[in-house]
Amino acid sequence: MTQAKAYAAASATSGLAPGAIDRREPGPHDVEIAIQFCGLCHSDVHTVRSEWAAPTYPLVPGHEIVGTVTRVGPDVVAFAEGDTVGVGCMVDSCRECDSCLEGFEQYCENGNTGTYGAPDRRNGGGLTQGGYSSSIVVDENYVLNVPAGLDPAGVAPLLCAGITTYSPLRYLDVQEGDSVGVVGLGGLGHMAVKIAKALGATVTAFTTSPAKASAAFELGADAVVVSTDPAQMAGANGTLNVVIDTVAAVHDLNPYLRTLARDGALIQLGLPPAEMPPVEPGLLIRRRLAYGGSLIGGIAETQEMLDFCAEHGIVSDIELVTAAELDQAYDRMVAGDVKYRFVLDNSTL
Amino acid sequence: MTQAKAYAAASATSGLAPGAIDRREPGPHDVEIAIQFCGLCHSDVHTVRSEWAAPTYPLVPGHEIVGTVTRVGPDVVAFAEGDTVGVGCMVDSCRECDSCLEGFEQYCENGNTGTYGAPDRRNGGGLTQGGYSSSIVVDENYVLNVPAGLDPAGVAPLLCAGITTYSPLRYLDVQEGDSVGVVGLGGLGHMAVKIAKALGATVTAFTTSPAKASAAFELGADAVVVSTDPAQMAGANGTLNVVIDTVAAVHDLNPYLRTLARDGALIQLGLPPAEMPPVEPGLLIRRRLAYGGSLIGGIAETQEMLDFCAEHGIVSDIELVTAAELDQAYDRMVAGDVKYRFVLDNSTL
Repeated sequence: MTQAKAYAAASATSGLAPGAIDRREPGPHDVEIAIQFCGLCHSDVHTVRSEWAAPTYPLVPGHEIVGTVTRVGPDVVAFAEGDTVGVGCMVDSCRECDSCLEGFEQYCENGNTGTYGAPDRRNGGGLTQGGYSSSIVVDENYVLNVPAGLDPAGVAPLLCAGITTYSPLRYLDVQEGDSVGVVGLGGLGHMAVKIAKALGATVTAFTTSPAKASAAFELGADAVVVSTDPAQMAGANGTLNVVIDTVAAVHDLNPYLRTLARDGALIQLGLPPAEMPPVEPGLLIRRRLAYGGSLIGGIAETQEMLDFCAEHGIVSDIELVTAAELDQAYDRMVAGDVKYRFVLDNSTL
Repeated sequence: MTQAKAYAAASATSGLAPGAIDRREPGPHDVEIAIQFCGLCHSDVHTVRSEWAAPTYPLVPGHEIVGTVTRVGPDVVAFAEGDTVGVGCMVDSCRECDSCLEGFEQYCENGNTGTYGAPDRRNGGGLTQGGYSSSIVVDENYVLNVPAGLDPAGVAPLLCAGITTYSPLRYLDVQEGDSVGVVGLGGLGHMAVKIAKALGATVTAFTTSPAKASAAFELGADAVVVSTDPAQMAGANGTLNVVIDTVAAVHDLNPYLRTLARDGALIQLGLPPAEMPPVEPGLLIRRRLAYGGSLIGGIAETQEMLDFCAEHGIVSDIELVTAAELDQAYDRMVAGDVKYRFVLDNSTL
């Protein structure tokens, strides 16, 4: 065991406070990582504050991890001390089901092992603890290589927000000539705009506020539609091939389904806290549309995404925060006051 | 003009009564057909009884038409007098939009011309009148060749119920090794079982009643799940690649979404008269599922379906009715008392 510094939540209302956690000695296939940066995901807030299910406390959140390899187990060949690496939303899975064997570990039929707050199916059990800490030990199969030339702080959010938007865009084979709409311009949405653009698509950003139009254009959007303006929404009717919906709040999807052309698909990425208004079957039937979902991405696909981002010079637009600012950053995330992702500077733990 | 015998509705409550309608003289590209059989579709009932929108009366329904060519226009090359031909749900479309040019006339962006009750965009206007009549004149581009060797009365429902289920099964590339679920064992559902089976899939029929199990097996189903039995539904969890939902009544789709494996799709074909319970986004996200719709099929695909049915010896299971029995047949359809499609014997008009 080694001790790591960490910021943990003691309860749903405690906020995050400094402390120490144990990290295991690297096993034969393990990689020990000194964490440099960790992105703050809205799901961290939901989990810490018991807004989804009640987690076991103390809890160290964080699943957008970038750091430097400090030690590797004797059987590790793909990583060496000094490498810059990443860890995303999962640190293990059953490795035996069809999904795992086909590289879709995120859909592990026995449940993937989340990077924090999840029962560790190996390593003597216990609960996983995340990236708001000075180090982590992860099986090499769940460690990503961070390509040189990308700002490591800006890379951190790629491990969740990046792959979560990249995966459905690739699954739907988005390419030059396609038109992609993006609903919501937060951590996920701003990545969806950048990645869809890099894939060659024409990108329309939907925003509730005309004031956000310039920010959307700065991210690379080709068009901005103010979703509260019926005339603008009517103008977008039947024009898009794919809509990536990143809004986790309850909202009506039917206006966005109407913007899809025949054979189009709307992919919902956020899990709303309550029942959504029903989708109108007639919209799906009359244009052969699909309403789907998607969950992060597999490990090999996450590596592909990182390499793609390196090739296209894509990182997340971030605001770096210190450990002491975490509680405040959570409040600002809830208020939507972030462009577009907070990243913890782990040297401040 | 020639006069045709027809059964028409004079109002939403009049029922169907005998009369006469005018059919145009065949133009250069027209095919005149002496109708032998016409299937009774549930949408005929909805339309005649003003349950969707109020149609213009008098109205002659019927869009599952099989007959014999009596005359062709001088420019018609694909059909000749004496041919057995079919006409489905549409008799025209704009022929200029992307959907029409790509062979998806059913999704015509300017609206296809329904076989009955639709404004005729050519031929001097007027409303189209359907197949409960002794003859019809249709542009050759919307006429299908009925392969020899199939019972023409059993072919009639293929023109709507057949193509409506064939099209999504083909669009989703269902083949040997796939598992397909069918919800609802009516006109559409019984065709979905037969066609999915002929495509090589393993077919699970969902029924609300154990008493219907033997009928499902007779149609070719490999398994039957009683949807009201939670244990049976739990046993089907995550097992299917495609679910074809043919139920037009309001019902909860979430139990059927749970039967889908990763990357599965549920295709809804029926248009319910009121709001459906919302689909749970978490189900879509956790297995990358799609909830979609589909509308009949294009003309070329309908011909492909007829040829496929000929190859596999597939027709609809029907009960032949006389014109005088139409009102009673409608009542029985509403009561679900038909195995599986009524077909009008047009010689009784």
